[in-house]
Amino acid sequence: MMSSDNPNHNSKTSPFGKNSETLVAQTPAPPYYAVIFTSVRTPGDEGYGDMADEMDKLARQQEGFLGVESARNEVGITVSYWASVEAIKNWKANARHLFAQQQGREKWYESYKVRICKVEHDYSF
Amino acid sequence: MMSSDNPNHNSKTSPFGKNSETLVAQTPAPPYYAVIFTSVRTPGDEGYGDMADEMDKLARQQEGFLGVESARNEVGITVSYWASVEAIKNWKANARHLFAQQQGREKWYESYKVRICKVEHDYSF
Repeated sequence: MMSSDNPNHNSKTSPFGKNSETLVAQTPAPPYYAVIFTSVRTPGDEGYGDMADEMDKLARQQEGFLGVESARNEVGITVSYWASVEAIKNWKANARHLFAQQQGREKWYESYKVRICKVEHDYSF
Repeated sequence: MMSSDNPNHNSKTSPFGKNSETLVAQTPAPPYYAVIFTSVRTPGDEGYGDMADEMDKLARQQEGFLGVESARNEVGITVSYWASVEAIKNWKANARHLFAQQQGREKWYESYKVRICKVEHDYSF
């Protein structure tokens, strides 16, 4: 397994023209925390896209935010990384985020599951 | 927050016609383990699709396998769930999987990051 210490590796660009570094979250050495949010959307946008953008910006401003990765096909997976459980609790209790969570249950999500995890080990290529 | 105990909830179908239950992994109560595999692909298939299908089937046969969720846009995220760290180690050391990991570094992945996590808490809608 190659080490993430390879200084040239993150200068590669993806087939989409973005730098790999901007796509795979550059988190510090473990331990840190991850929130895995797996969801199935309802049909239609209904304001979802705008709120997702707003929440992305807002999350990045939270104390203890370390990074985020997201992809969606039939199922959507967003993993956000945090310095502590306290940081995760503060983000969950953010007033604007609470509104988004409520709207999500009312309009945007067919179902979802949230998993709070402690990242104990990681490695990169 | 609605409880995952709602007996009617998982009977909903997604906009893609599949049952939500087959898309969001139905894991047992925590603690359990998650492997978050975040990757950026190289261009072209080069046998990737067939191997991904084979690895999905093979992982499901491993002792301690609890479920898997996967999505890819610019970045791909596959989260597999396991009963123990031992189960994760056994899967990583599987001979056919070792070959796939080697091929992945040679051909299929621009970059990736693997995070081994302990799921401490979860909740569903």
